Amino acid sequence: MPSANASRKSQEKPREIMDAAEDYAKERYGISPMIQSQEKPDRILVLVKDLTVQKADEVVWVRARVHTSRAKGKQCFLVLRQQQFNVQALVAVGVHASKQMVKFAANINKESIVDIEGVVRKVNQKVGSCTQQDVELHVQKIYVVSLAEPRLPLQLDDAIRPEVEGEEEGRATVNQDTRLDNRVIDLRTSTSQAVFRLQSGICHLFRETLINKGFVEIQTPKIISAASEGGANVFTVSYFKNNAYLAQSPQLYKQMCICADFEKVFCIGPVFRAEDSNTHRHLTEFVGLDIEMAFNYHYHEVVEEIADTLVQIFKGLQERFQTEIQTVNKQFPCEPFKFLEPTLRLEYCEALAMLREAGVEMGDEEDLSTPNEKLLGRLVKEKYDTDFYILDKYPLAVRPFYTMPDPRNPKQSNSYDMFMRGEEILSGAQRIHDPQLLTERALHHGIDLEKIKAYIDSFRFGAPPHAGGGIGLERVTMLFLGLHNVRQTSMFPRDPKRLTP
Amino acid sequence: MPSANASRKSQEKPREIMDAAEDYAKERYGISPMIQSQEKPDRILVLVKDLTVQKADEVVWVRARVHTSRAKGKQCFLVLRQQQFNVQALVAVGVHASKQMVKFAANINKESIVDIEGVVRKVNQKVGSCTQQDVELHVQKIYVVSLAEPRLPLQLDDAIRPEVEGEEEGRATVNQDTRLDNRVIDLRTSTSQAVFRLQSGICHLFRETLINKGFVEIQTPKIISAASEGGANVFTVSYFKNNAYLAQSPQLYKQMCICADFEKVFCIGPVFRAEDSNTHRHLTEFVGLDIEMAFNYHYHEVVEEIADTLVQIFKGLQERFQTEIQTVNKQFPCEPFKFLEPTLRLEYCEALAMLREAGVEMGDEEDLSTPNEKLLGRLVKEKYDTDFYILDKYPLAVRPFYTMPDPRNPKQSNSYDMFMRGEEILSGAQRIHDPQLLTERALHHGIDLEKIKAYIDSFRFGAPPHAGGGIGLERVTMLFLGLHNVRQTSMFPRDPKRLTP
Repeated sequence: MPSANASRKSQEKPREIMDAAEDYAKERYGISPMIQSQEKPDRILVLVKDLTVQKADEVVWVRARVHTSRAKGKQCFLVLRQQQFNVQALVAVGVHASKQMVKFAANINKESIVDIEGVVRKVNQKVGSCTQQDVELHVQKIYVVSLAEPRLPLQLDDAIRPEVEGEEEGRATVNQDTRLDNRVIDLRTSTSQAVFRLQSGICHLFRETLINKGFVEIQTPKIISAASEGGANVFTVSYFKNNAYLAQSPQLYKQMCICADFEKVFCIGPVFRAEDSNTHRHLTEFVGLDIEMAFNYHYHEVVEEIADTLVQIFKGLQERFQTEIQTVNKQFPCEPFKFLEPTLRLEYCEALAMLREAGVEMGDEEDLSTPNEKLLGRLVKEKYDTDFYILDKYPLAVRPFYTMPDPRNPKQSNSYDMFMRGEEILSGAQRIHDPQLLTERALHHGIDLEKIKAYIDSFRFGAPPHAGGGIGLERVTMLFLGLHNVRQTSMFPRDPKRLTP
Repeated sequence: MPSANASRKSQEKPREIMDAAEDYAKERYGISPMIQSQEKPDRILVLVKDLTVQKADEVVWVRARVHTSRAKGKQCFLVLRQQQFNVQALVAVGVHASKQMVKFAANINKESIVDIEGVVRKVNQKVGSCTQQDVELHVQKIYVVSLAEPRLPLQLDDAIRPEVEGEEEGRATVNQDTRLDNRVIDLRTSTSQAVFRLQSGICHLFRETLINKGFVEIQTPKIISAASEGGANVFTVSYFKNNAYLAQSPQLYKQMCICADFEKVFCIGPVFRAEDSNTHRHLTEFVGLDIEMAFNYHYHEVVEEIADTLVQIFKGLQERFQTEIQTVNKQFPCEPFKFLEPTLRLEYCEALAMLREAGVEMGDEEDLSTPNEKLLGRLVKEKYDTDFYILDKYPLAVRPFYTMPDPRNPKQSNSYDMFMRGEEILSGAQRIHDPQLLTERALHHGIDLEKIKAYIDSFRFGAPPHAGGGIGLERVTMLFLGLHNVRQTSMFPRDPKRLTP
């Protein structure tokens, strides 16, 4: 199908090479016409990861990117890349390839996509730089399917280089803005491929676990009529002739589903926060993994289900995504993630005692600052050897109005956060299911009752006791892998300063 | 734990009854204190669906809603409901229950949630009105866990009554706005429970199928910097000191993921359309099931994967959700959904010929109107006996700028829609992966190149040929079940006139 005569206007350089002289191999290389679904050839494309000694001496077709090319006399070595796999290919002047063909191959811009026909050959010496170490591909035909522009905005090899303290000269790395500005290329690195394949796994494990536990997936609206959770930090949307808002969480809708007898629900979806926070762990749009569940007598029934769900995710990742974890570790070394079964649950007052013993001065009803969270994480790790724990019974004063007070201690509440490597990944609570108490608490917080009428009314026709929580997906990915910025685990992150790509 | 002495300020009526006279059963009924997680009793609550003759003569605890209550002399019959299951319960004056207790039970407002201790008794005559027909519960203790207000905004029995032509007198039904205004109650009906449990199943089957096919789940941003798909029908968001927009589809991001070597991706998420359309099938916010996939040589490779995914969903629903389908059918009778394997694929010109034969006058490059889509659906059903088919090769003129033209016929394109019961549920195409052709087509459509720069630039560094499509979740649910309004399949629908609850 592809032919050496085919050409496209913009790609003069390879054409010049092709047209230069008489060439016995001229049908064997070139720029393919743009694939517009002209034909349905029965050619089978073999995956790079399947190029092993089992295929030795077979003639195969492969489609891959040109990761690097290096001409050397009458030979050209290419590294062909397909996601996280790569193989060495050799174009050498001989029966199949002419001088012009070798030159053509050597001049293909990096990141171009090529179709190659070649013979799989066992090599005597392992190809250390490739994942397919035992074979190389002896090229018989090479056609460019999609030509990359000659100058890449970043080099993939630089983008996976571990950062070391006191950078040595010549060891280029890529800064975060360059990565994010050119995300399509940055996402091609083995590290990015591993991060986002693992993130897909987190979502899958979350749902798999909950569906096995009898949960129902729900879809909640993101455009809402009132800034129901207090009103601060909410994005405004022009909605025909009125204003609307972007939901800061699906919580109110999850709770309505509980009042509507769905009993155990979950959802995965975007969550919007108009916070002008420029930190390593805040985004203005992130993905929430949300759970809400009716319980019988005690909210710990729910806490246990949520903690077990997270434990199942951690286990699943360690079982099914070991390759991805190791790939990320190569660039970002980190200790394996540790957790206990059952999950460690500490009460807020115990945490306060630990912090005070470590010299922190804090009031009983004061919230944890970020540095204190991290310090607590280190203290817990030392004492209990776990990177994951639950902090239960937060002071009522630092939680939202709908949080159920502790019946035994009016200054405490039936609420909890969960932490990974000392950073909060989930916030949750037993919710008030009694409309009268809910009204009282809303008034205490100075909330306009008119704005939360539909919410309070949901509880007027019989509501079971219930609890839940919301998990930040990007944080879980970041902290499980021991990364240091949530922008590394959001494909197209949004923060106060970034809206593109 | 619950006690007859417990009381809550707002519930005077039951208290009066309780306090009225000396009462040998007074510890056996009452209003429970609000469940604030005071204790962790080891009481086991049995599910209503598990109340069968296997449990005959056992004493059990059940938590359920009071669906109806009917006093009759010294007895009170209750129907207890738990999601789509219900059972009859009897409180009768005797050893366990006093006159006052029977009166208390008879006065519990419908939809209240109660904890009941009772003996499971086999009945001689089947209880026709309940799902648990072979047993009833003889009540020994009854405590209200959450009291509903006395006046319900709608009656659940009315809400599941089939609508018939020429309504008979006294056959109340509930109109759509009343349902949606009181969605928390409307969602409790057996029909709503079935609809949304099946919808959860659609999402699950979609992902299960695609993950088995090697797809990766991605998360795409909903807040975007430019109204990239033409600019019409887009919601504006205030983003700190600037404006941003809500994504009308994840398509551009899915394509970037393909350019970033993720090869086969899917996502499930909200999609926003600022269209002032007030029809049975338009929402301003709906859930998109999106697919994008690199292919080798022909976009039909992708069409086949998408069609097979839908077929796997239909099969899975018919296998795993037969109860839900039948429950919905009771209220909304409908023929079972039919489909072929492999899926029928018609070309646009064939469809035109069928329509013209049926008397429709249409130009070759004209788009299908909604009535013509439906007519075509009927013609296809008659001829091929399928409710699901693909319409391929749409006129280029009616498709978006990024649609790949057909290389053989410049008036056609490599694009397709998929239909269920004569209505469109998916729109898709091979996308242009060549930046030069993409630029030409954008200019032809009068699109400001500056606004789609990041998008076009994504293709400059090698892009594989690819195709995809977006499925509307609510439409699939509606059309699979033969419902008539997409608001029936959106939990909290959003349209130009509705933003609450």
